[in-house]
Amino acid sequence: MPVDHSGRRAALRRSMEANDLESLLVTDLLNIRYLTGFTGSNAALLVSAHDAPGREDSTVVCTDGRYVTQIAEQVPDLRAVIDRSSATYLLSALPTARSGRVGFESHVVTVDQHLAWTTIGSDLDLVRSPGLVEDLRIVKDEHEVGLLRDACRAADEAFAVLVDGGRISSGRTEIEVARELEALMVEHGADGISFETIVAAGANSAVPHHRPTAAVLTDGDFVKFDFGALVGGYHSDMTRTVVIGNPQDWQKDLYELVKRSQTAGREALTPGVDAAAVDAASRSVIDDAGYGEFFLHGLGHGVGLEIHEAPGIAKTSTGTLPSGAAVTVEPGVYFSGRGGVRIEDTLIVRDGGPELLTMTTKELTLV
Amino acid sequence: MPVDHSGRRAALRRSMEANDLESLLVTDLLNIRYLTGFTGSNAALLVSAHDAPGREDSTVVCTDGRYVTQIAEQVPDLRAVIDRSSATYLLSALPTARSGRVGFESHVVTVDQHLAWTTIGSDLDLVRSPGLVEDLRIVKDEHEVGLLRDACRAADEAFAVLVDGGRISSGRTEIEVARELEALMVEHGADGISFETIVAAGANSAVPHHRPTAAVLTDGDFVKFDFGALVGGYHSDMTRTVVIGNPQDWQKDLYELVKRSQTAGREALTPGVDAAAVDAASRSVIDDAGYGEFFLHGLGHGVGLEIHEAPGIAKTSTGTLPSGAAVTVEPGVYFSGRGGVRIEDTLIVRDGGPELLTMTTKELTLV
Repeated sequence: MPVDHSGRRAALRRSMEANDLESLLVTDLLNIRYLTGFTGSNAALLVSAHDAPGREDSTVVCTDGRYVTQIAEQVPDLRAVIDRSSATYLLSALPTARSGRVGFESHVVTVDQHLAWTTIGSDLDLVRSPGLVEDLRIVKDEHEVGLLRDACRAADEAFAVLVDGGRISSGRTEIEVARELEALMVEHGADGISFETIVAAGANSAVPHHRPTAAVLTDGDFVKFDFGALVGGYHSDMTRTVVIGNPQDWQKDLYELVKRSQTAGREALTPGVDAAAVDAASRSVIDDAGYGEFFLHGLGHGVGLEIHEAPGIAKTSTGTLPSGAAVTVEPGVYFSGRGGVRIEDTLIVRDGGPELLTMTTKELTLV
Repeated sequence: MPVDHSGRRAALRRSMEANDLESLLVTDLLNIRYLTGFTGSNAALLVSAHDAPGREDSTVVCTDGRYVTQIAEQVPDLRAVIDRSSATYLLSALPTARSGRVGFESHVVTVDQHLAWTTIGSDLDLVRSPGLVEDLRIVKDEHEVGLLRDACRAADEAFAVLVDGGRISSGRTEIEVARELEALMVEHGADGISFETIVAAGANSAVPHHRPTAAVLTDGDFVKFDFGALVGGYHSDMTRTVVIGNPQDWQKDLYELVKRSQTAGREALTPGVDAAAVDAASRSVIDDAGYGEFFLHGLGHGVGLEIHEAPGIAKTSTGTLPSGAAVTVEPGVYFSGRGGVRIEDTLIVRDGGPELLTMTTKELTLV
């Protein structure tokens, strides 16, 4: 399925109209990628509110000389200007920027950058407009879901090789296993890794975001894996916790508790639900068991062009989860100095129940 | 060699004093890592100007509940507070923040974040203070140079395996070769890759920042490699361009031209030199040959905790290059649709001539 960049820009224009903007200056590179397909490291995009699809004469993208060829290939449907100063150039040179309220991404633009723009001219009406494109990005189209599926599949397949091949074994180090898992994801179709792989053995599994070390995996350990694959710019995110050898009772109990909590979180994922209610559904299982204080983080987050993006799913979240949102559900309970369990899936919110993208079993796996 | 975080903070205090700051709020995560060793994904640091090394009672780091264990391990020498709102917490709760001018990193703090801080209290005197830590980071200490050396060595060794093993060969795709090179860097000691590897064959070599595709390497092609290894958070950066089979005369001529230009750039690297003069030394070789318009980018950049950091080395650069700066020198000439050559080293500016960290030969290599 081809990417409908023009359709995404049309959706943005509806949001701009609701915010009474004549134009929007987009400087976040992932937002520019989402709206145009351009993947270079320097760009700005001025979207005019009144352009019509197929006739976007006043919508202009700007990058520098390194990307002359690339922008022509990746963005054949928009006017492209080559100027090193990108955003400043667009604000200075385009009449569109002087014809009314110009929104800018105040959640990513720095204080210094904004200050520099304010000196361009007194007729420039810059308006704080945070998150307009990020809001659109919450609901994934089928092209995006396809890439997320491919990314999750690469991670599933890589992990299966690790488990089935007996590669998670006593005597290996966290780093060795992490690097092997990363190489396997690439072998199984990933363009790269989604974020630095977490492999945390024994007491390290109680550190929610442990970085792999030379620590040696040992019989009886919990080993927690949090990892993901990157495909076409889209990130998968999955956590599984296994036991080497025979689990003790406390490990089985802890695992089952987190698993029940994770199931409750997944089951709460219905279109339109309050994000905080999903967190509560999962968290209450752990609270009721008396371990609430050991669940140290929010339940989940949106995932897509970024590994963490809107919507957040936490106690303090205020938004709702629309149909088509890609999110993680990842409760965890951590006993400092002893060990911890987290179980995480990536899912798409759907009518009739969420679509599970990370297919690896959530039964307690002994390796 | 252990890292002297306390010494780095002492150097920062001298810079704060010169800027008449009572305290500095550091929110850039790499700057926090540089000053404290903390590698988590949420943190803020308030540095008090009047603390003395070993008695830094008013300098406080803040992160959230995920990092309780990690911050205690990584930052044993500073007071740590756990609060999810990090920077906002420090500005609200610490008396230090109310005792005079509080610098903030206006080059990374967003307009929205700053606006939120201004509502904390009318007695809060926030002062734009861009780049104080980045300026310190330009000159690398021996701990940092050691990590850069290790990163460059991993890249050199990986590339040698690729070349000597006949792995750059007609019929393979850019992506295959890129992924193999990345896996080899990890095998040779890299924690990961420094940035997405560029492998660009044939006409693609004329795209300065080409992303690897399924394009097949073909006899007679230029193949350009731009890649690096990551070790302990430090990035290496190297570009080499090879020819598959027998080079044509235009390829030999173009290669020699870029090589002469690169040598001139390296030779201009002396402590205190104007960055623009280094760019000019290299660029004039290409200008004199009549190809100036095909050298599409600046000559180089600083490298360290970021793949691109201060100081820039370009026509428009205004600074000088101090002894101990880690920089790249990377001229390139690109004939669109035909092919291009770039040659890049990572070096340390030193009295008596730069220290070369990327050791791979710059003679034209035929594979």
